[in-house]
Amino acid sequence: MQSFQELIAQFTKYFDQLQFPAEPSSLYKAAGHILEMGGKRIRPVLCLMGNELFDTLHPDAFQAGSAIELFHNFTLIHDDIMDKAPLRRGKPTVHTVYGDTAAILSGDVMLINVYERLNKVNTNYQKKLTTVFNKAAIEVCEGQQLDMDFEHLDPEAVDYHSYVNMIGLKTSVLLAASLQMGAIIGGASEGNQEHLYAFGKNIGIAFQIQDDFLDAFGDPEKFGKQQGGDILANKKTFLLLKAFERSNDAQKAELRELLDSAPADKVERVLAIFRDCKLDEWAEVEKERFTALAFENLEKIAVLSNRKEPLKELANYLLNRQQ
Amino acid sequence: MQSFQELIAQFTKYFDQLQFPAEPSSLYKAAGHILEMGGKRIRPVLCLMGNELFDTLHPDAFQAGSAIELFHNFTLIHDDIMDKAPLRRGKPTVHTVYGDTAAILSGDVMLINVYERLNKVNTNYQKKLTTVFNKAAIEVCEGQQLDMDFEHLDPEAVDYHSYVNMIGLKTSVLLAASLQMGAIIGGASEGNQEHLYAFGKNIGIAFQIQDDFLDAFGDPEKFGKQQGGDILANKKTFLLLKAFERSNDAQKAELRELLDSAPADKVERVLAIFRDCKLDEWAEVEKERFTALAFENLEKIAVLSNRKEPLKELANYLLNRQQ
Repeated sequence: MQSFQELIAQFTKYFDQLQFPAEPSSLYKAAGHILEMGGKRIRPVLCLMGNELFDTLHPDAFQAGSAIELFHNFTLIHDDIMDKAPLRRGKPTVHTVYGDTAAILSGDVMLINVYERLNKVNTNYQKKLTTVFNKAAIEVCEGQQLDMDFEHLDPEAVDYHSYVNMIGLKTSVLLAASLQMGAIIGGASEGNQEHLYAFGKNIGIAFQIQDDFLDAFGDPEKFGKQQGGDILANKKTFLLLKAFERSNDAQKAELRELLDSAPADKVERVLAIFRDCKLDEWAEVEKERFTALAFENLEKIAVLSNRKEPLKELANYLLNRQQ
Repeated sequence: MQSFQELIAQFTKYFDQLQFPAEPSSLYKAAGHILEMGGKRIRPVLCLMGNELFDTLHPDAFQAGSAIELFHNFTLIHDDIMDKAPLRRGKPTVHTVYGDTAAILSGDVMLINVYERLNKVNTNYQKKLTTVFNKAAIEVCEGQQLDMDFEHLDPEAVDYHSYVNMIGLKTSVLLAASLQMGAIIGGASEGNQEHLYAFGKNIGIAFQIQDDFLDAFGDPEKFGKQQGGDILANKKTFLLLKAFERSNDAQKAELRELLDSAPADKVERVLAIFRDCKLDEWAEVEKERFTALAFENLEKIAVLSNRKEPLKELANYLLNRQQ
């Protein structure tokens, strides 16, 4: 059993050897650009951890992990085009540097490479592994489409459960599927696979709530992002949707006015309403609710509890918890 | 053994049953839009014919054929975005009706569905089938990128062999792979698979030469397209590239001038140069050269020659030949 930090180091070393062909350079330089930006490689490491929870680490977990990481990067390239995002991790996005055509095509070719990886795993579980992956991959696309659809809706028109569903599809199902794919490679039973999937899905939602919370209430120095970035971008977040649910008529009117304008004190005024509605406390409770659900799922998995330690450590690290 | 017309009817019936989920409707209506435009379904039928060349028709050929047809439609959606094409088969393109975001995403989700289909075939040949498909799929993306790169080049800077290579990747490898995938399902030997692949690749190039020829010299009434559409769009075609190779200095200067402008008699004047360079004759010879290569490949396949009849008929039909 290895810690998640050790597995990240091991996977990164493996993944960094991945080379695209040299030609057509306009296509593969664009694909290389996003991979060079780096990233925490959390998803493939979840796949390795899902494997190690049940058995010794198998080379197929690295193949499947690479497929997952390539898929994640494919979604980043295409999402950045749709969001017209100029920057990612402080660097110019693929379409900004190479244009929309090369960005669309390099994403496409990366998605085909995903399946080239999945085609290399043991035949005994190739079908099952690919089925689990495809389900998540389709859901990620559906989540992205729902997110885009929500963009055009009034925040009051988006109900909280639809939002949780969308964010689950967009951000959590791939984490959950990564764990399950590792579990399949490790020979886990269907029941254990399902518990591990549910663990990943709930951790993902808790993580997203925390992300929204930190954007609003976090210490910008520690968090490394501008405070209130989501507020300035009028982004629909857990907090904004909940604010419309909890606020009184005067607060609702002010929120609506603030969404339609950009006064210098926009962030402060939105945050004041968030605080009046006690959304900081609410977010903590909601995050803990999903975290508790996740840990219940983890408990149900029928392996010795010390094998679960690395996953608990990773969850606590991601969720910024003290224990 | 069935004729290609019978197989087209059979495949179309099968493929038309394919349903996308209802929600998110913005995503799946966009995906459905391109399929409703119809099409000849030539590629999947090549897969069925590749199967029937060696053995009785297997349901996996329909699965693989659907995967291939979905892939083809995925490329159409994304290519139309890149080409900013308003119309396809006389109907508004997906991105024109549903916007770029839904067009990118519906292409993506269609590509994932391709692999959902390929994941359903017999485990005995799933890996081989997927490998052949992936190679072609990657080459199609590379071909599209090269085509986009060529767009920005002076036609004199594109050499003929690079152009044949690009057009082969963009249009022929998928035809070739469709046949090979069918052959794999039919249990063909590696050698027979390779001959059939080469047959498909050469037929594809011959078809493209004919397409360029008909656009320039064809009877618009029979062809159903505006004569000289490629010329008006300054499209790089077999004919234009060959024209720069064969023309004298005065003709080159006139061609260059015509490419930079749009006089009312542009088509006539370009066609006059094409005729002076005897490109109409050249195109016939070049098309026949690739056709002959294709038929040589077909000859080499070690099955009874009457099994090859439907493929010969299809080739003659596609290449508009009298025999």
